[in-house]
Amino acid sequence: MSGEGAGRSEFALIADLFAPLTKGADGALGLLDDAALVEIPSGHQIVAAADTLVGGVHFRLDDPPDLVARKALRVNLSDLAAMGATPLGFLQTLVLSDAATDSYLEQYAAGLAQDVKEFRMPLLGGDTTSGPGPFTVTITALGTVKKGEALLRSRARVGDILCVTGTIGDAALGLACLNGDLNVSREQTEFLTSRYHLPQPRLAVGCALAGLANACMDVSDGLVADIGHICAASGVSAVIEQEEIPLSLSAKAAADDDGKWWQSILGGGDDYELAFTVGSEHLDQALSLARKADVPVKAIGRIADQTDGRVGVVVIDSSGAELQISVPGYQHR
Amino acid sequence: MSGEGAGRSEFALIADLFAPLTKGADGALGLLDDAALVEIPSGHQIVAAADTLVGGVHFRLDDPPDLVARKALRVNLSDLAAMGATPLGFLQTLVLSDAATDSYLEQYAAGLAQDVKEFRMPLLGGDTTSGPGPFTVTITALGTVKKGEALLRSRARVGDILCVTGTIGDAALGLACLNGDLNVSREQTEFLTSRYHLPQPRLAVGCALAGLANACMDVSDGLVADIGHICAASGVSAVIEQEEIPLSLSAKAAADDDGKWWQSILGGGDDYELAFTVGSEHLDQALSLARKADVPVKAIGRIADQTDGRVGVVVIDSSGAELQISVPGYQHR
Repeated sequence: MSGEGAGRSEFALIADLFAPLTKGADGALGLLDDAALVEIPSGHQIVAAADTLVGGVHFRLDDPPDLVARKALRVNLSDLAAMGATPLGFLQTLVLSDAATDSYLEQYAAGLAQDVKEFRMPLLGGDTTSGPGPFTVTITALGTVKKGEALLRSRARVGDILCVTGTIGDAALGLACLNGDLNVSREQTEFLTSRYHLPQPRLAVGCALAGLANACMDVSDGLVADIGHICAASGVSAVIEQEEIPLSLSAKAAADDDGKWWQSILGGGDDYELAFTVGSEHLDQALSLARKADVPVKAIGRIADQTDGRVGVVVIDSSGAELQISVPGYQHR
Repeated sequence: MSGEGAGRSEFALIADLFAPLTKGADGALGLLDDAALVEIPSGHQIVAAADTLVGGVHFRLDDPPDLVARKALRVNLSDLAAMGATPLGFLQTLVLSDAATDSYLEQYAAGLAQDVKEFRMPLLGGDTTSGPGPFTVTITALGTVKKGEALLRSRARVGDILCVTGTIGDAALGLACLNGDLNVSREQTEFLTSRYHLPQPRLAVGCALAGLANACMDVSDGLVADIGHICAASGVSAVIEQEEIPLSLSAKAAADDDGKWWQSILGGGDDYELAFTVGSEHLDQALSLARKADVPVKAIGRIADQTDGRVGVVVIDSSGAELQISVPGYQHR
């Protein structure tokens, strides 16, 4: 496939667009080697997460390429945040399609450069190849966490308070706007779609919660589905109070206008907020740490045992009635 | 995409087929978390390599799925070998296609399980998703190497002896057999195609050379192209003696029958042998260590400076004449 297409060669792509993203990371070896060489501070463990984003599945083919890059990096940063880890660097493998023109890739790399700087997350290595399918990005994020302090899904305990950062449901509603299913004001559309395009990895909160919270994960499949993952891993159940779920003004407007949007808020993914459980004796401290990180955190429910026969996640409305959830979460197959 | 297709759900796939591959690796956290948690021995660095294999590009769509899995893991193990690293574990992201039926994935996972055991390389984490393109596998391999002992491409020195492990060109000729371009005996076809399907990562040799060889890489793009990468990274040139290049009996038969196959031997990729340079004073020690690892190693040339105006790689035949290379190596764009 040498010389395929009219674009830069594979090696020119790497040298021109991606080698600059390794700045300050000696371990990237200038992207000249077979692998990266990474140094770890003593007393720390590595946290490693990998996610693939496929064009037309995880992002729209007409999404701005700089935002595709930033989202690809940020969903992986969000995985680090969920474990309480500090970013170290990442590997990237790209499968280029015919639609990945030089201009597309320049915008992609420019977006990536912006977030590499913002999150101090240098490129360490990877692979560039071509295929007949859509443009596909895989990022493996590496981070570090103090030994024994990583946040896991499996540590929720009965009686824990269940909290979330930020607001829930915006990304799913943003996607509904992009798909023409939801019509709200221009300003609301811009807000919601920006939440879909550009998640905010909650690294500062995750770091602050390391060693303090019991269980944690990021909300990527959908609030109910992801709390369900915590319940399954921890052998507990959860009760969420619908009216405590933090909504943006735009999401609230959509839900007030038509209650059906609650299904998207509860079941839609892509928020990349953190959901965590904390012993009630540590709740104030957790809220105070989150305030210092300038990230809103809200208690939305509690962790219960499974002895009452209810397994998994229950959402109750203000009257105490249980909501029916039609879309429990995203599955890729 | 919940419930898409007739196959196992995403979570059942992970639980049934992939969670067993984490055996013995506590850091995989049972594939229940957002990321893996990895422990590193003190005094060591992490080596991290990522490669994507796209169906129809890096493997044939009718290749046996167990061999696709094993090759995907092995090409990454080969990157670890090239840096002198010891395997630690890997992350895997899959993009499933419609053709990735339950039966395909069961065979895939069975192959992976075999090599996870053989190379003590547990699965640590990753991601499973679906897309409209071909079945695509990305593996990020993690390994460890003693601090300061990693083998790099950039350390070749003028006067070094250039060596390779194993035999060169078999994989490219195997692909030519599969594509119906090369007709040899059934036994030779089986040998050559097995070399294409199932590379042998030279981990023991790589480990033994760590701290001894100067430059090293694995032969994946093609012998001449890859030696060229060492030359470019080290600012040197290389002279390869054609008659010293180790050939299998099958490759020799093909080349003797029609000299045109030399172009595939010199330019075709996928061998995953190691090419390394070593100071002449350490050559005997390197050869002896390779013998202990039961891997043939052969000196095929030397590293020269660039002052004679020749840049990069030159292959000379037994008369000292320079060969013309028509296919310098594989590029993905």
